[in-house]
Amino acid sequence: MDSNDLINISLNDTETAVIILDQTLLPNEEKYIELSSAKALFEAIYTLRVRGAPAIGIFAAYALYVLARQTKTKCYKEFYEEVQKNCAYFDSSRPTAVNLNTQLKRMENLVKNLEEQEIPQILESMKKEADAIYNEDVKMCRAISEFGITLIKDNYGIMTQCNAGPIATSRYGTALGPLFMGHQRGLNINAYICETRPLLQGARLTAFELDRAGINCTLICDNMASIVMSEGKINAVFAGCDRIARNGDTANKIGTSSLAILAKHYNIPFYIFGPSTTIDMECPTGAEIEIELRKPEEIKEMFFTKPMAPKNVKCYNPSFDVTSKDLITAIITEKGIHKIPKNGTDVF
Amino acid sequence: MDSNDLINISLNDTETAVIILDQTLLPNEEKYIELSSAKALFEAIYTLRVRGAPAIGIFAAYALYVLARQTKTKCYKEFYEEVQKNCAYFDSSRPTAVNLNTQLKRMENLVKNLEEQEIPQILESMKKEADAIYNEDVKMCRAISEFGITLIKDNYGIMTQCNAGPIATSRYGTALGPLFMGHQRGLNINAYICETRPLLQGARLTAFELDRAGINCTLICDNMASIVMSEGKINAVFAGCDRIARNGDTANKIGTSSLAILAKHYNIPFYIFGPSTTIDMECPTGAEIEIELRKPEEIKEMFFTKPMAPKNVKCYNPSFDVTSKDLITAIITEKGIHKIPKNGTDVF
Repeated sequence: MDSNDLINISLNDTETAVIILDQTLLPNEEKYIELSSAKALFEAIYTLRVRGAPAIGIFAAYALYVLARQTKTKCYKEFYEEVQKNCAYFDSSRPTAVNLNTQLKRMENLVKNLEEQEIPQILESMKKEADAIYNEDVKMCRAISEFGITLIKDNYGIMTQCNAGPIATSRYGTALGPLFMGHQRGLNINAYICETRPLLQGARLTAFELDRAGINCTLICDNMASIVMSEGKINAVFAGCDRIARNGDTANKIGTSSLAILAKHYNIPFYIFGPSTTIDMECPTGAEIEIELRKPEEIKEMFFTKPMAPKNVKCYNPSFDVTSKDLITAIITEKGIHKIPKNGTDVF
Repeated sequence: MDSNDLINISLNDTETAVIILDQTLLPNEEKYIELSSAKALFEAIYTLRVRGAPAIGIFAAYALYVLARQTKTKCYKEFYEEVQKNCAYFDSSRPTAVNLNTQLKRMENLVKNLEEQEIPQILESMKKEADAIYNEDVKMCRAISEFGITLIKDNYGIMTQCNAGPIATSRYGTALGPLFMGHQRGLNINAYICETRPLLQGARLTAFELDRAGINCTLICDNMASIVMSEGKINAVFAGCDRIARNGDTANKIGTSSLAILAKHYNIPFYIFGPSTTIDMECPTGAEIEIELRKPEEIKEMFFTKPMAPKNVKCYNPSFDVTSKDLITAIITEKGIHKIPKNGTDVF
C-alpha cells in the first residue's frame, strides 16, 4: 500500500499555491494543477477537481493557508476577518460532507486563539495545522484499512461505489484501503465497481486506482448491482461516507442506500468506512443531513458528445443519499469496527 | 393517445424496404431510415435502431417479408429454405426477448404450411401475417393500457425504467401506455424516469416520448431511485418485460430487479406490463432465461467524448435481469391484471 505514489494534495515549493491531481481529467490524463486564487480554489471543490470528504477537508486547510499568505495587512483583526470570510466562502462550496466544515472551523479557531501573535507566526501555525490535518488523515486511513482487512477473506468479491480511495483522502483511502492493503498482503480480491452516475467516479477514479495497483476489478453500471449480487459474486459491500449522524444513519454518494437495500435483500454484509471526523455528533439522525442538489446538465449533457435527453425535461440530481443505520452491518473508523446496536440505540 | 403520430415501423411504398425511426439518434434527431438488405435489417436489431420486445417482433416479420420478395427462385423448397435461413439469422441478433423468436417462428410456420401455393401467393400471405402481427400488437397495447389505467389515480408518481412506450411497440406502448392514456383522460401524472444505463433508453427515448406528449416528467440516474422512493414521491413502479417465465419470474431491462427490491423495501407496488406473447410457457422459471451479455464499450465509451474508464478494466454488461415473481405485485397483459399468487403456484 505504501507503494501508492499518488500525492493528490500538496503545496508548491514557494507555498503560494495548492497543487492537486485534477480528478476531472482522470482516467485519461494524470495532470497536476496549481491553484492560488480564492476563486480557483473554490472552483476546484465545486467542480470536483478535488473530491472525497477527507480530501476536501485537507485541501480547504491548505487553501486557507495559501490565501492567508496573500493577505497584506499587519493588523490581526483584519487578518482574522479575512480568514473568516474565506472559511465561509469555502464552506458554501459543498454542503453535505462534514469534513470540509470541520477542518475550516479548526483552522478558523486556531487563528481566533492566536490574537497575541504576529502575522508571520500565525501563518506558521496555520501551515503546521494543515500539515497536521493531512498527517492525521494518513494515520486514520491506515488504521481504518487495518480494521477493514479483518473483514476480508481470500477470493472475496467486494462491491464498491463512488470513490473512497487514495485520491479521495490523503493516501490509502477509506473504503478502498482494505482492498489495497489486502492486495499487498497477497489476498486475491475481486472488486466490482459501480460506475456511479452521473459523474462516474467509480469508472473514472476507482477503476483507475484499483487497476493501477493491479487489483482484479470489474466495472458495472449502477443498475447491474442487483444481478451481480444475485449471482453470488459479492461477499461484502464497502462504501465511504460524507456525514454520519449520531444514530448511525450515513450520508454518502447517491446510490449508497440502494446498494444497502439490495445487500440486505441478498443477505450480504454492508459496511461504511470513514474517519471519525465524519461523525457529526450535532446531527441526531439522517433526516437532519442536508443533501446537495446539483445541476441537470450533469445528468443530461456532461461527458456526452450530444445531449442525452430532450432539452426541456426536468432532472432531479441529488448528489448524496442517506442510508438508514438499520441497513448497515458496521461502521469502520480509525477507532474500530462499530457494530450497529440491534436495540435501536445510537451508534456513537 | 390516438394523437400519438409516431409510426415507428412501416413498409415503404414499393414494399422493398422496412422503414423505421432510428432510435439510436433520439432525442436529438427524428430520422426515418429504409432498410432492405439482410445485413442492414439484422444490424438494426443488434445495434438497437429498433428495440423493445414487441417492436422487434413486428420488425422481424416485415423484414422476413421484404427479404422474401427479393428471392428470385420459383421453387418452393428453395424459397422456404431461404425463409428458414433468414429466420435463424434474425433470431441470433438478440437472445432474451421472446417476441422475436415467437414472431419469426410464426412467419416460418406460415410459409411451411403453404407448400401448395405459388410464390406470389405466399408473399401475399406473409404480408398479411406481418400486418396481423402489427395490428394485434396495437390492439394488445390498447387493452394493456386500459387495464393499467385502473392502477393509477390523479397526481400519482410513477417510476419507469428503460422504454416501454409507443416506439418499443406498434403504438401506445405497454408500461407507458397507461401514462399516455391517463394523461389524455385528464389525470395529472408525475413520471420519474430512470435513465437506464448503459444505453440510456430512459433518458433518450422515454423522456422524449413523455415530454412530447406533455406528461410531467423528471429524469433521474438509476442510482437515484432509492432516494426518490424514500421521499414518498412514488406510488407505483411500471416496467415492461422481455420474457416472462411460466411461474411469473420476469426478464426485463437491466436494473428492473433492483427497482423491484427497492419498491418492496419502501412498500410501493411494482407492476410488469407486456403482451401475453411475452409469456414463455416453455420456460418454467427465471433461472432458465438466457441473459444477453453485451460489449464493454457500451459502458466505457459509447456516447462519451472520451473513454470513461481505464482501457484495460474489465466490464460486465448484462442487458437484462430477472425479477423474481415474489417481488412483483401483478403482471398486466391484454387479458387482464394477473396478481401473483401468494401460495407460490405458477402465474400462468
